[in-house]
Amino acid sequence: MFGPTIQGEGVLIGLPTVFVRTGGCDYRCPWCDSLHAVDSRYRDDWTPMTPQAVWEEVKRLSGGVPLTVSLSGGNPAIQPLGELIRLGHRDGYRFALETQGSVSKDWFADLDVLVLSPKPPSSGMATDWAQLANCLEAAGARPQTVLKIVVFDAADYAYARDVAARHPHLPVYLQPGNHMPPDRGEVDAGIDMDGIADRMRWLVETVTQDRWFTARVLPQLHVLLWGNRRGV
Amino acid sequence: MFGPTIQGEGVLIGLPTVFVRTGGCDYRCPWCDSLHAVDSRYRDDWTPMTPQAVWEEVKRLSGGVPLTVSLSGGNPAIQPLGELIRLGHRDGYRFALETQGSVSKDWFADLDVLVLSPKPPSSGMATDWAQLANCLEAAGARPQTVLKIVVFDAADYAYARDVAARHPHLPVYLQPGNHMPPDRGEVDAGIDMDGIADRMRWLVETVTQDRWFTARVLPQLHVLLWGNRRGV
Repeated sequence: MFGPTIQGEGVLIGLPTVFVRTGGCDYRCPWCDSLHAVDSRYRDDWTPMTPQAVWEEVKRLSGGVPLTVSLSGGNPAIQPLGELIRLGHRDGYRFALETQGSVSKDWFADLDVLVLSPKPPSSGMATDWAQLANCLEAAGARPQTVLKIVVFDAADYAYARDVAARHPHLPVYLQPGNHMPPDRGEVDAGIDMDGIADRMRWLVETVTQDRWFTARVLPQLHVLLWGNRRGV
Repeated sequence: MFGPTIQGEGVLIGLPTVFVRTGGCDYRCPWCDSLHAVDSRYRDDWTPMTPQAVWEEVKRLSGGVPLTVSLSGGNPAIQPLGELIRLGHRDGYRFALETQGSVSKDWFADLDVLVLSPKPPSSGMATDWAQLANCLEAAGARPQTVLKIVVFDAADYAYARDVAARHPHLPVYLQPGNHMPPDRGEVDAGIDMDGIADRMRWLVETVTQDRWFTARVLPQLHVLLWGNRRGV
């Protein structure tokens, strides 16, 4: 858990948030930028906490002033987060969840924001379209639900268009992939700023030449501002 | 006019857009980043166009595919843009206007997005609060209306808090000031990337320490990606 800092990605970009990063993931993307939260080899770094303890820490970090809490991972959908959301809502906090959409939970319906981030071909993962649809159905009408798709190359871009075509009513956020994700243990891993800007410009050109004028293209702002440092 | 490229600032950040930059401004901010559109010394660079001609060029640039058109300046509110909006709406285009809020027009009510960007103390300009309120009243319920405030220093930050307190129902976007705006005629003016990142981090820290958790803090993305180049 860390923050408050601004959300660096997607629909909430720029908004102050406290991050709750849960351990464990049903995916293993080769370009994962949060392996320290994913691979059980690193589980000694993880802190088992009750919903009440997580909630107390959110309140402490935010000084008791309501804000939007970002639930991230790993895949936070594999954790039982309904009680945390219930505790937070009681005090006026809001909750955004980011998940690849491979696991759906009833408590998605209590979220304020649901970011579905199905993984493109470069991830090596296969999208379970039925599960993605289940996530949407579980969420229902309350959360603001959006798609966020990481794009490394033309195949990923074609995948993003496919996902958007399957869910034409969902806003789409495209994010260039980070080719140099942090390695575990490096506090301030190297950052290829020119490469990030190059891939962002490529994605902007691809989207505008393709006249996909409803998609938003956003970088990982925190990487531009802080590099690959953790906890910012 | 240029584009489509992504909107680099504020509420529409990341969204493909065609920019229509109108000439002339009732303000003279010392840190203006669009002096070439403001100062009448440069009016030989400006192209007088009818609403129909502007609209034809928007359609050409966007290949006839509807998108969001960004009306910028200078202060575009001093121009008669109602007819352009009417022409565009007929074909499904959307219109966002950015103005300091010193001049209100009836056609604000036809906008899809209104970005009110009153200028802080560092601009040397005095805010006409009655005019800002007039802009809100002229806009009415149709446009999504937000505040965007440029912040160079602590006095500007205090001003931003004041504006937000006067209009508690409007979403607020804070943007660190660009200390090295482009000079006229320089195609690719120098850019102080470290300085930009420093000021952005300062603003994030200020907002989060102040626990202003509803304000969004966003940089000028186009400056991070393209420097001070014009037409991107």
